[in-house]
Amino acid sequence: MSALILDGKALAQKTEEELSTRVAALKEKSGGQTPILATILVGGDPASATYVKMKGNACTRIGMDSMKVELPEETTTEELLAKIEELNANPNVHGILLQHPVPAQIDERACFDAIALEKDVDGVTCLGFGRMSMGEEAYGCATPKGIMRLLEAYDIELEGKHAVVVGRSPILGKPMALMLLNANATVTICHSRTQNLPDIIKQADVIVGAVGKPEFIKADWIKDGAVVVDAGYHPGGVGDIELEPLKERASALTPVPGGVGPMTINTLIYQSVDSGEKKIG
Amino acid sequence: MSALILDGKALAQKTEEELSTRVAALKEKSGGQTPILATILVGGDPASATYVKMKGNACTRIGMDSMKVELPEETTTEELLAKIEELNANPNVHGILLQHPVPAQIDERACFDAIALEKDVDGVTCLGFGRMSMGEEAYGCATPKGIMRLLEAYDIELEGKHAVVVGRSPILGKPMALMLLNANATVTICHSRTQNLPDIIKQADVIVGAVGKPEFIKADWIKDGAVVVDAGYHPGGVGDIELEPLKERASALTPVPGGVGPMTINTLIYQSVDSGEKKIG
Repeated sequence: MSALILDGKALAQKTEEELSTRVAALKEKSGGQTPILATILVGGDPASATYVKMKGNACTRIGMDSMKVELPEETTTEELLAKIEELNANPNVHGILLQHPVPAQIDERACFDAIALEKDVDGVTCLGFGRMSMGEEAYGCATPKGIMRLLEAYDIELEGKHAVVVGRSPILGKPMALMLLNANATVTICHSRTQNLPDIIKQADVIVGAVGKPEFIKADWIKDGAVVVDAGYHPGGVGDIELEPLKERASALTPVPGGVGPMTINTLIYQSVDSGEKKIG
Repeated sequence: MSALILDGKALAQKTEEELSTRVAALKEKSGGQTPILATILVGGDPASATYVKMKGNACTRIGMDSMKVELPEETTTEELLAKIEELNANPNVHGILLQHPVPAQIDERACFDAIALEKDVDGVTCLGFGRMSMGEEAYGCATPKGIMRLLEAYDIELEGKHAVVVGRSPILGKPMALMLLNANATVTICHSRTQNLPDIIKQADVIVGAVGKPEFIKADWIKDGAVVVDAGYHPGGVGDIELEPLKERASALTPVPGGVGPMTINTLIYQSVDSGEKKIG
C-alpha cells in the first residue's frame, strides 16, 4: 500500500485561485478596495524577514494588498503595543500578523493578545484560542488550522479516531489538540515529559508531529495505516517524523516539504480574505 | 492496599479557616470592607437556587459579603448582559458568578464572556480559559481548579503521568485537560465519540470522570494503583465512576460525596478572596 500524499502545495495553489476570484469580486464591488494584511517584523532576524516577505508575496499573488511595518531591534513592548493599537484602529487593515519570534526584551504574549479578535487572522490571541476551543467563532491558529483544512480537503475521517499530538506549543500543539477534539477525535497530547512516548504513538490513528526536532518521531513507532501529519521543517528538508519508511505503510501522509508548510501561509491569507469580506463586502 | 481518600470536604473546611483569617485581615486594614461576590440567578430552577444559596452561605462562613442578583425566568440576553456590565463597573464587586444553566432563550456563552476577566472568579470566560491554557494569569474554572488544588494538597504527582479525562464540557473536561497538561501530565481527552474507551482508560495513571452519567466508568476499566477523580454527582450519592471496588485497588480516590464537590464552591470563594485582596489590599 502506498500512502496517499496530502499535497499542501497543490491545495494552497488551488485555494489561491479561489481567493484571487474572491478578492477580485470584492474590488469590483467596492470600487477598488482589497483586504489588507498588516505584517509586523521587529528586528533583523533573516529567517523572520524571509517569512514576512513570503507572506507579503502570497498577498500579492491573490491581488490583495499588504502593509509592511518594520520596527527596529530595540523596540519596546510599549512601542509595539502602540503600533498594534494603531493597526487595530485603522479601518483599512483587516488582518494583523506579528511575526514570531520578537526580540527578547518584548513581552510577546502581551503583544499577541493586543491584536483585536476580528483582525487576529493568524490566530495567536488567548481570546481567539479560548473561543475556538469552546466552538465559538474565531480565526484558527494558522498552522493547525492549515492542517485541519488539508485533512478536510482529502476527506480524512477524524470522528472517533485516536489522534496523538506530539508537542504543546501555544501556536501549534495546543490549538491542534483542541481542533482535533472539536472534530470529535479522541486526543492525546504528548510532550517532553511524556513517558513511553513510542507506546502512546503506537496507538495513533492520526499522528501529528509538532516537536521541532528533526526526525524525532521514528517510523517504527507508528502503526500501519495511520494518518501521518508532520508540522516540522528542518535543514535538509526533513520534518519531525521519520517519513521515508512510512510512504509505504501510512494510509496518508504530509510530505516535507510541500505538506503542512504551504498551508500555514495559505491559511493566513484565507482568513485575511474572510476578514476583508466581512468589513468591505 | 487501601486507597488514600482525597478528602475534599476536609480540605475545603481547612481552606475556609485560612480564608476567614484573610478576610478578617482585609477588613481590619480597610476599615470594614470585605471582598464581595455577586451571584446571579436567572429564573426559578430549584437546583440552581440551591447552588446559589450554598455559594452565598460559603461567603458568609468566611466573613465575606455576597450580593444576590435574582432575575426573572423571562430575562433576555440583553437584560442579563446589561446587569453583568453594571456589576463589572461596580468597584465594590470583586467576583461575579452567573449560575449555570440559564433559561434557554438566553445566549449563555455571550453572558459568560461578558464577565470582566478580573472578576471571573468562577473561571467561565473564553478569555480566562485561553489565558489559563497558555500559562497566563487567570482564575481557573472552579471545578477543575478545585480538583487541581485537591491533588496538590495530597502531593499527587502529575508530571509525566498519563491522565485520562472523560468528558469535554466547557467548564469541566476541557479546562481539566489543559490544567493537567500544564502540570506536565500526558493528557488524553475522551468523550461520547471515543472508540474503545475501556482500553484507553486502562492506561490511565490518573482518571478523571466528568461525563455526567451515573457510574458510567466501570471499576474494572481502571488499573490497580491509579489515582481516581470523580467529578460527578448523582441521586443516591453516586458519581460518574463505579468507585466502591476501587477503594481497595486505587492509590488515591475522591469519594462521592465529599471529594470534588466541596472543592468547587471552595475554589469560587478562594478566588473571590484573591480578587478582593488585589483590589482592597
